[in-house]
Amino acid sequence: MPLRVTVWNEFRHEKSNPKVAAIYPNGMHEAIAGYLRRSNDLAVRTATLDQPEHGLQEEVLQQTDVLVWWGHMAHDKVADSVVERVQKRVLAGMGLVVLHSGHFSKIFKKLMGTTCDLKWREEENEREILWVTRPGHPIVQGIDDHFILPREEMYGEYFDIPEPECTFLISSFGGGEVFRSGCTWSRGAGRIAYFRPGHETFPTYHDATVLKVIENACRWAAGTAAQIPPSFGNRKLGWIG
Amino acid sequence: MPLRVTVWNEFRHEKSNPKVAAIYPNGMHEAIAGYLRRSNDLAVRTATLDQPEHGLQEEVLQQTDVLVWWGHMAHDKVADSVVERVQKRVLAGMGLVVLHSGHFSKIFKKLMGTTCDLKWREEENEREILWVTRPGHPIVQGIDDHFILPREEMYGEYFDIPEPECTFLISSFGGGEVFRSGCTWSRGAGRIAYFRPGHETFPTYHDATVLKVIENACRWAAGTAAQIPPSFGNRKLGWIG
Amino acid sequence: MPLRVTVWNEFRHEKSNPKVAAIYPNGMHEAIAGYLRRSNDLAVRTATLDQPEHGLQEEVLQQTDVLVWWGHMAHDKVADSVVERVQKRVLAGMGLVVLHSGHFSKIFKKLMGTTCDLKWREEENEREILWVTRPGHPIVQGIDDHFILPREEMYGEYFDIPEPECTFLISSFGGGEVFRSGCTWSRGAGRIAYFRPGHETFPTYHDATVLKVIENACRWAAGTAAQIPPSFGNRKLGWIG
Amino acid sequence: MPLRVTVWNEFRHEKSNPKVAAIYPNGMHEAIAGYLRRSNDLAVRTATLDQPEHGLQEEVLQQTDVLVWWGHMAHDKVADSVVERVQKRVLAGMGLVVLHSGHFSKIFKKLMGTTCDLKWREEENEREILWVTRPGHPIVQGIDDHFILPREEMYGEYFDIPEPECTFLISSFGGGEVFRSGCTWSRGAGRIAYFRPGHETFPTYHDATVLKVIENACRWAAGTAAQIPPSFGNRKLGWIG
Repeated sequence: MPLRVTVWNEFRHEKSNPKVAAIYPNGMHEAIAGYLRRSNDLAVRTATLDQPEHGLQEEVLQQTDVLVWWGHMAHDKVADSVVERVQKRVLAGMGLVVLHSGHFSKIFKKLMGTTCDLKWREEENEREILWVTRPGHPIVQGIDDHFILPREEMYGEYFDIPEPECTFLISSFGGGEVFRSGCTWSRGAGRIAYFRPGHETFPTYHDATVLKVIENACRWAAGTAAQIPPSFGNRKLGWIG
Repeated sequence: MPLRVTVWNEFRHEKSNPKVAAIYPNGMHEAIAGYLRRSNDLAVRTATLDQPEHGLQEEVLQQTDVLVWWGHMAHDKVADSVVERVQKRVLAGMGLVVLHSGHFSKIFKKLMGTTCDLKWREEENEREILWVTRPGHPIVQGIDDHFILPREEMYGEYFDIPEPECTFLISSFGGGEVFRSGCTWSRGAGRIAYFRPGHETFPTYHDATVLKVIENACRWAAGTAAQIPPSFGNRKLGWIG
Repeated sequence: MPLRVTVWNEFRHEKSNPKVAAIYPNGMHEAIAGYLRRSNDLAVRTATLDQPEHGLQEEVLQQTDVLVWWGHMAHDKVADSVVERVQKRVLAGMGLVVLHSGHFSKIFKKLMGTTCDLKWREEENEREILWVTRPGHPIVQGIDDHFILPREEMYGEYFDIPEPECTFLISSFGGGEVFRSGCTWSRGAGRIAYFRPGHETFPTYHDATVLKVIENACRWAAGTAAQIPPSFGNRKLGWIG
Repeated sequence: MPLRVTVWNEFRHEKSNPKVAAIYPNGMHEAIAGYLRRSNDLAVRTATLDQPEHGLQEEVLQQTDVLVWWGHMAHDKVADSVVERVQKRVLAGMGLVVLHSGHFSKIFKKLMGTTCDLKWREEENEREILWVTRPGHPIVQGIDDHFILPREEMYGEYFDIPEPECTFLISSFGGGEVFRSGCTWSRGAGRIAYFRPGHETFPTYHDATVLKVIENACRWAAGTAAQIPPSFGNRKLGWIG
């Protein structure tokens, strides 16, 4: 059975900013989904903010093993009921891969319990070097000890997240800042990965290494997508035989 | 300067259940606060659900280094605005010690990002043995390798919490269940401890070892109560010198 | 390509104790290996203490994706040079599954950095209940919320190990003790799992659930068995482009 | 009772390299110890490689709450018996603060279980910026969100250490490299901190911020220096009352 990926994108910048539209004419979600579709063992669909229920109806989530999330300018437009639905599904075993400005999404903040705040700088032509800090981790399979993105937006520490269970990438920027760019956590039966790159005004989701990391993250996060048995639920116990 | 502790209690069982009132005539908060007040270096106050703003006004929290939390039958009566205020203060460095049924409180679930669900059994005369799994940890200073509570309510795994940063106590119960009874996490600049014992129908908060663990937990959780500098906040950066 | 498993056993109790020989006529390693061989995608071999180089020559390790380890009465007979060879291979990405009394093996202590000491009791007819504390984890796929072994040897806390990255099973025993029976760590590019059951005088490695957990642990630990690129090694750097 | 600190230094570079001797005429240990002695509640002594038993006799360790370690060119000259003595004392609750090139010391590698390898570059005039990634942690009390060392030796990832329990500082270097410069772990009842700066050819241990971090690290690591009770030891158990 293929692994079922849903790529969710806010899909607003692409409609309002010609610069972004030029880079991602069909939206960032299609750039990512298009890459993932090259693998026969992945079944990929997309969903966006302006679809009914943001395209994340209960039946869609039930058929999703891993959800990729990109949001930025409209985090507050995501309905709380959908956020709760996604959280519930993550705790039941669905993987979640949060990209770039998705650090400030309702769903990521809800699962982390912190502000997920950070520092940033609006600059262009700023070089980001990403260093692997957990070689052998499935998310960095096939990635060398570092890779370089010639132009990205700077994110800097302090990044207000719970201590990651694994930090697999740390970035440095032209200005001397650093950032934990690849982190993982588990929540319930679900696995969560955060991966930093992907500012909308740069062609980051056309970069082969970035796309490979996203694919790896999907495969890793979906690894436990089996439903947990009902026996794990809250209930009053009698005595064991 | 003394360490400032606020003991918060829902204080409902004591008013409605004569059995509980007999054990804790002034409320569980007073049993705990009374013990803590024996230490000259602790400045202890209490707060309860039915006070204005649940006794947790902004100025009270600003003067609190560590907050102890007990709730059970009225979790949903705690105002969301107060929960957000407490969360904000924890992230800024206030310690939080969550007791027993407080596992289902809004504030604990908000900081954990999970359901915090568990199994349980309504029984009496059930023996709980608590084993220390991190000797040398400040919260178990002065505690032997295990201690026994002759009568408690059973809580059993799976306890739906994020992987603890430290598990310092694990319990076994008469029915063969186990539970991670002492756990810690950090969120922002704040430290959080969960300590399981304390069912309202047993005299648990009169037990010397339990009270010692709570005191230790207060001292540990308040350890970082210094305000974090404003430089850590979210802001747009220029270039460093 | 099949996943290559090497099951290592001290294989001494089986030769000297008729009771153990009656349960495991071909050794515990063959009981485990025989079960694993039922899966077509696993390539299983065994190795034992009294073979040359304990059966763990460099070429064997290079062809091993995950190593299962059982030892007890002859830990000190394992040559330090072989222990270092195994450690090096684990850091390079080989998985390691340590069983029961293997907690006191040289290789486990070397990778943990602690004494790996614990409490125990020589008793028979003692019931062990193992509770799952991380549902959805690959090692407990297909396992219910708990399982019971009717007769096992008790291991009790404090178990002197570094805080596990994940605790997936906790046991309770007839005497009221508890034990972290399923734990994981990463070291370098390698994954390590500890799984408690398996006292030699009980038919534990004929139990279907125990065998399933071992198989799951092999699949999980081997998950990162890819070699890490040489670029990760210690070296003097020049300037990046 | 004062907190008892022993500052250990290899003390070889200072004797053989005039450049180092000019910066640290009495050795790096005296630069650090001199700073710590300004605090009335610290009782500070030093020990060096060429003293009998490297100055780390059993009675010295028994009277040490936290040990600071700097070594580089003579790691292999440290006797294994002394390394084992230090490890035993750490597991029993002594704190350990490992500095800079101490990453390759026998004691650090023994406690970590990994190679502790890293990348480096011999350069001068290379700027290091250290960013705080866990505000509120006792080790960074009084430290702003970042601090700068104008000249240091570069250390780069991958740093082969077990996933830290807390990463409190991450560095960037002039060449675009990053490094986890402040990390903590617990082993047994002991706390371990690693703090990166301190190349012998720079006046790093005269820097006020660096010295403050070392002092904070000593206070934090010694926090659990209480002896753990003998009840935690390995022993055969009978039945609990």
